[in-house]
Amino acid sequence: MAGNTFGQIFRITTFGESHGEAIGVIVDGCPAQLTVDIDYIQGELDKRKPGQSKITTQRKESDTVKILSGVFEGKTTGTPIAMIIPNEDQRSKDYGHNVDVFRPSHADYTYFSKYGIRDHRGGGRSSARETAARVAAGALAKLFLKANGIDVIAHVSSVGKIDAPNVEIRDAEEFIAQREQNIVRCADPATAEEMIAFIDGVRKDGDTVGGKVSCYITNCPVGLGEPVFDKLHADLGKAMLSINAVHGFEFGSGFSGSEMRGSEHNDIFRKNGDKVETITNFSGGIQGGISNGMPVEFRVAFKPVATIMHNQQTVNSVGEAAEISGKGRHDPCVVPRAVPIVEAMAALVLADHLLRDRAAKT
Amino acid sequence: MAGNTFGQIFRITTFGESHGEAIGVIVDGCPAQLTVDIDYIQGELDKRKPGQSKITTQRKESDTVKILSGVFEGKTTGTPIAMIIPNEDQRSKDYGHNVDVFRPSHADYTYFSKYGIRDHRGGGRSSARETAARVAAGALAKLFLKANGIDVIAHVSSVGKIDAPNVEIRDAEEFIAQREQNIVRCADPATAEEMIAFIDGVRKDGDTVGGKVSCYITNCPVGLGEPVFDKLHADLGKAMLSINAVHGFEFGSGFSGSEMRGSEHNDIFRKNGDKVETITNFSGGIQGGISNGMPVEFRVAFKPVATIMHNQQTVNSVGEAAEISGKGRHDPCVVPRAVPIVEAMAALVLADHLLRDRAAKT
Amino acid sequence: MAGNTFGQIFRITTFGESHGEAIGVIVDGCPAQLTVDIDYIQGELDKRKPGQSKITTQRKESDTVKILSGVFEGKTTGTPIAMIIPNEDQRSKDYGHNVDVFRPSHADYTYFSKYGIRDHRGGGRSSARETAARVAAGALAKLFLKANGIDVIAHVSSVGKIDAPNVEIRDAEEFIAQREQNIVRCADPATAEEMIAFIDGVRKDGDTVGGKVSCYITNCPVGLGEPVFDKLHADLGKAMLSINAVHGFEFGSGFSGSEMRGSEHNDIFRKNGDKVETITNFSGGIQGGISNGMPVEFRVAFKPVATIMHNQQTVNSVGEAAEISGKGRHDPCVVPRAVPIVEAMAALVLADHLLRDRAAKT
Amino acid sequence: MAGNTFGQIFRITTFGESHGEAIGVIVDGCPAQLTVDIDYIQGELDKRKPGQSKITTQRKESDTVKILSGVFEGKTTGTPIAMIIPNEDQRSKDYGHNVDVFRPSHADYTYFSKYGIRDHRGGGRSSARETAARVAAGALAKLFLKANGIDVIAHVSSVGKIDAPNVEIRDAEEFIAQREQNIVRCADPATAEEMIAFIDGVRKDGDTVGGKVSCYITNCPVGLGEPVFDKLHADLGKAMLSINAVHGFEFGSGFSGSEMRGSEHNDIFRKNGDKVETITNFSGGIQGGISNGMPVEFRVAFKPVATIMHNQQTVNSVGEAAEISGKGRHDPCVVPRAVPIVEAMAALVLADHLLRDRAAKT
Repeated sequence: MAGNTFGQIFRITTFGESHGEAIGVIVDGCPAQLTVDIDYIQGELDKRKPGQSKITTQRKESDTVKILSGVFEGKTTGTPIAMIIPNEDQRSKDYGHNVDVFRPSHADYTYFSKYGIRDHRGGGRSSARETAARVAAGALAKLFLKANGIDVIAHVSSVGKIDAPNVEIRDAEEFIAQREQNIVRCADPATAEEMIAFIDGVRKDGDTVGGKVSCYITNCPVGLGEPVFDKLHADLGKAMLSINAVHGFEFGSGFSGSEMRGSEHNDIFRKNGDKVETITNFSGGIQGGISNGMPVEFRVAFKPVATIMHNQQTVNSVGEAAEISGKGRHDPCVVPRAVPIVEAMAALVLADHLLRDRAAKT
Repeated sequence: MAGNTFGQIFRITTFGESHGEAIGVIVDGCPAQLTVDIDYIQGELDKRKPGQSKITTQRKESDTVKILSGVFEGKTTGTPIAMIIPNEDQRSKDYGHNVDVFRPSHADYTYFSKYGIRDHRGGGRSSARETAARVAAGALAKLFLKANGIDVIAHVSSVGKIDAPNVEIRDAEEFIAQREQNIVRCADPATAEEMIAFIDGVRKDGDTVGGKVSCYITNCPVGLGEPVFDKLHADLGKAMLSINAVHGFEFGSGFSGSEMRGSEHNDIFRKNGDKVETITNFSGGIQGGISNGMPVEFRVAFKPVATIMHNQQTVNSVGEAAEISGKGRHDPCVVPRAVPIVEAMAALVLADHLLRDRAAKT
Repeated sequence: MAGNTFGQIFRITTFGESHGEAIGVIVDGCPAQLTVDIDYIQGELDKRKPGQSKITTQRKESDTVKILSGVFEGKTTGTPIAMIIPNEDQRSKDYGHNVDVFRPSHADYTYFSKYGIRDHRGGGRSSARETAARVAAGALAKLFLKANGIDVIAHVSSVGKIDAPNVEIRDAEEFIAQREQNIVRCADPATAEEMIAFIDGVRKDGDTVGGKVSCYITNCPVGLGEPVFDKLHADLGKAMLSINAVHGFEFGSGFSGSEMRGSEHNDIFRKNGDKVETITNFSGGIQGGISNGMPVEFRVAFKPVATIMHNQQTVNSVGEAAEISGKGRHDPCVVPRAVPIVEAMAALVLADHLLRDRAAKT
Repeated sequence: MAGNTFGQIFRITTFGESHGEAIGVIVDGCPAQLTVDIDYIQGELDKRKPGQSKITTQRKESDTVKILSGVFEGKTTGTPIAMIIPNEDQRSKDYGHNVDVFRPSHADYTYFSKYGIRDHRGGGRSSARETAARVAAGALAKLFLKANGIDVIAHVSSVGKIDAPNVEIRDAEEFIAQREQNIVRCADPATAEEMIAFIDGVRKDGDTVGGKVSCYITNCPVGLGEPVFDKLHADLGKAMLSINAVHGFEFGSGFSGSEMRGSEHNDIFRKNGDKVETITNFSGGIQGGISNGMPVEFRVAFKPVATIMHNQQTVNSVGEAAEISGKGRHDPCVVPRAVPIVEAMAALVLADHLLRDRAAKT
């Protein structure tokens, strides 16, 4: 109800502020007997952590995760899995100058208005630092999905106006390997270089820029998703829109589908061996809210990060005009670090629907 | 869990198939003492009903709603409000030829795969007829919001590649009146004419076309939305993506925001009398997932309707190749009838968050 | 949230007031492909309906149920099943004299205080008439359980201070048949006669009396129930305590277990063929909140019905002293009609946990 | 869904095993601006902790709680409050001899059957150690209730067959002080001495005994509780039944009410100054599931602890006969330590319903 829980059966609850003691997550409903690869979980966190390259913030956090419960002799026991990530770099002083000032396009004003109080240190609960807890939980979900043969893979498909060409996905691991060869996490090497150069220029301007992440779920079984309100793409959409800085979500043909005719857009069914498939995939692998066995495909739009190195006009908590100066460390473009977050949230949605589908038939 | 319930406090559960006895909804959690204007509810249903103009399907249903419970002497009592809409036009024979054939880009194949059984008559539960129940419930939510001074208004902003210019909204009622002067429900009269002519042409081709609906929430108080997973725009996004044929959702700057720089995109705060406001509204009225008092703005992309009057190749339920011929009645473009659905779902999200916000402070 | 929904996966939402248009229920999450025996559902309702014998209220309602959705060609489709029961005997005039007066030990005062408005006709939503909707939904749950080999059976074990001896249950159908041979629904014929005579005397006094219902779940598989908060007996307890007039719940050794020593109370495990069983069953078939394969056993205490034929002192809605006179029709003892309600609620809990357990293992 | 979450708005999720790294809880939905008295929270934990007197287990744990999030400068911020309690006394060796053996009337067999795996160390998740997390969360709920003038107080009213006389409650603090003057936590000093002597004898026998806790909610406002399924007493009942070793729950007249006549049992309303009250309180402060302003009263029955110092027959995980010998440390009677748990769970239910009630009126 207060919005810190996600999922129905495979369900997570996160906690923690940017500059508090620790952040963390409880994963409830992860089935028993799953082998937990803690190195894999840490590896996913490492892809999200700050300070990993010249195009991310220079804030340093090791983001080391510790499992407190729910795992016994390397396997899940069916009980809740608590994971915590201590906050190491609590340089609250950096933020001291903004205590009473509402940063433009941040959550300072809205949190203060809603609760009448706010933890101003580094954005408190509204900081994207909270997403580390999602990545840890999502890594567990991915292990569960892998045990069911399902892969969730994403990459940066746009930075500003630079778009990557469509990538054909033959193999999930190959795709990931390709993507990890560059610091912007775009699976197309030529575009990646262009993106990196562009972000670096934006960074030197003390500015930021938005971008897009494209995500694919391959080997997705037919039948996931519930009709009506909990359509698979509706839950994916909510999951993505809950990530900091996301301003848009589309799947399959997406916004461009609204410009097409039915005769072009319909995905014709055909038999391929034993399997039913469609010739095109404008449906993005989902029909009537339920997966149809084709790859699930969606895109997520991120606005530019609000923290910039320029001075900006604003108001303070008693409503007076104020100026805010650009200090501290910042991310010039959030999408390279957002890739594991998008994958984590998608994996959580899929794991949940995989379990929900077990109740479909008598 | 089976996906037929939406909302946390102001919560609806819908039921019914296209060609069953009736469809309907239970609204649970509507606060007591709200005056219920049944004519208003019926009026909203009339905007969604089939057969209302030459650019909608010619299927005829009066969609007459009846309240079974929860209202006493014209006011809500705090108990569940059940509303039913009997199905009148149950011409099941029209659909007899498609019993065992999966219509392209419909939910026939996925429902059958998930449940091992399906009500094939007119799409059964996957029919957009289900949205009538949402419109009835949403009309109640709108009455609750109106009692709190909040308006939810939408119109058709694109049909295919025809885009309406941005409309300045001075007054909610004026906007609605303007929009209702044409059958496509676009608030810009000149664009409306163009859209109507285009849809009529598409209809004559036996084809369909997609479009977009833009929605605005005006006089929205500061503080609605919960941080982290239940951000206001995440819940709006899920609500919209749960509507049949929707393929995309964006708010504020949306997808185009991903191409901007932070220095352009940041919404600068200023004082306007007693009120804090922002000079621009790229945030779409929502910051950190919580409304900031500016108008909430979002857009919804609808794919073209899958039912076309052309013959199409497909497979049947035993996996053989089959042909489907275009018969029956169809909507050439769904967006004019989608306007009240978008408003209804937005109103349900707002009503729910208005009640949830009551728990924010001690 | 407003309390009209029960269950997580197999989930029901009820609606309706005593003297409104109709009462009803939506069952969401009933798995697909279940054969629906409408006569069985009606038969369960007939056991709850008023006017069935001299020891129940003489109010007449046929309580005829109609299925509106979710069933196609005799089987569930996985979509929500709506059932309605029209209200026939809407003699509101009988209640006219109590419009502004709070009946003692009824819900008049608390509803009015909570909502500031109430439907006074026959108790409105607080009437036990609402339980008919539960019986209809519970009958569906019982059909689902029967398909899984599980039986839920109950009988009247006490009326006032008259207690039935413990009944050995060999066969569920035989038990039901035995119980249905008398109008008080006690499986012990001698005690049944005594109970009937006693209730008849109470009725002639214009008074009422309480009683107890005992319930057994036989052939319950091992493993149902979730640890910690959603223990099987905790959910059963909540289900029972939600029934009108219930004031107590105990399972296994119950209250008397609190007087025992551990060395007497522990249920010793032993092997019986391939099956693990316990020699005694003080645990009531549940250990650590999870079924252990022994019969689940619990008891439910009902207070005497508050409507009596005597004049009583009270206050009215403006806080003045008032007298209420005993008019209308009333149930001298509610337990014979409560038997199908107890079974229905127990079946709903079991069906839900049977589905929830499907998510326990990877 | 997996049962580790309790509450709707004021909602807790607990984690942790008896001999894991730590146990803990996330409290989500606690309103902002509540002053958090950490000493009060620790004080409640001290009442539950082991080793506090000769009639509790000698296992030593300091049960020191640490708040990780959600509190800023001594006040709640509206964000989730995570609290952890490290496990200090992880003497797993004590339990080594029971690895493969199912202890009678414990959860070993059912957990193993449900999940196919179990953390055998000290009962793992099924250990009553988990209730420490509830006490910490409940202490926060009590602070919220106190800020609203509501008190939740409990004491031991029975041990075995020794019953305390009814205690008149004039003042909550005085009641607590009286109760805390003896180690059995009974507010009647004479009975307390008798109980202590009895428990000490049971302990010397290497045996255990059950008991009852009575709980009172004073200054409870009118209107808490939701009709139908989430009746106040139904939620209290579920809360109590979810506590380890609880076998029964009754409120108001309880089981003895089932033996009464309506004419005795009805609580007659009268005016007392401005307030409506009832002359008797057989309703236990709740009518139609909603509080009526009288004290809420209920009783909870605890079975005797299953761990005894005697040898017992049982089976092991491969189904062979086995003997279990009584080793380790044990609680001869759990009720003295259960008092803060009962209060905690009751407080959580009340806090939740206090917030839920905010949505009752337009």
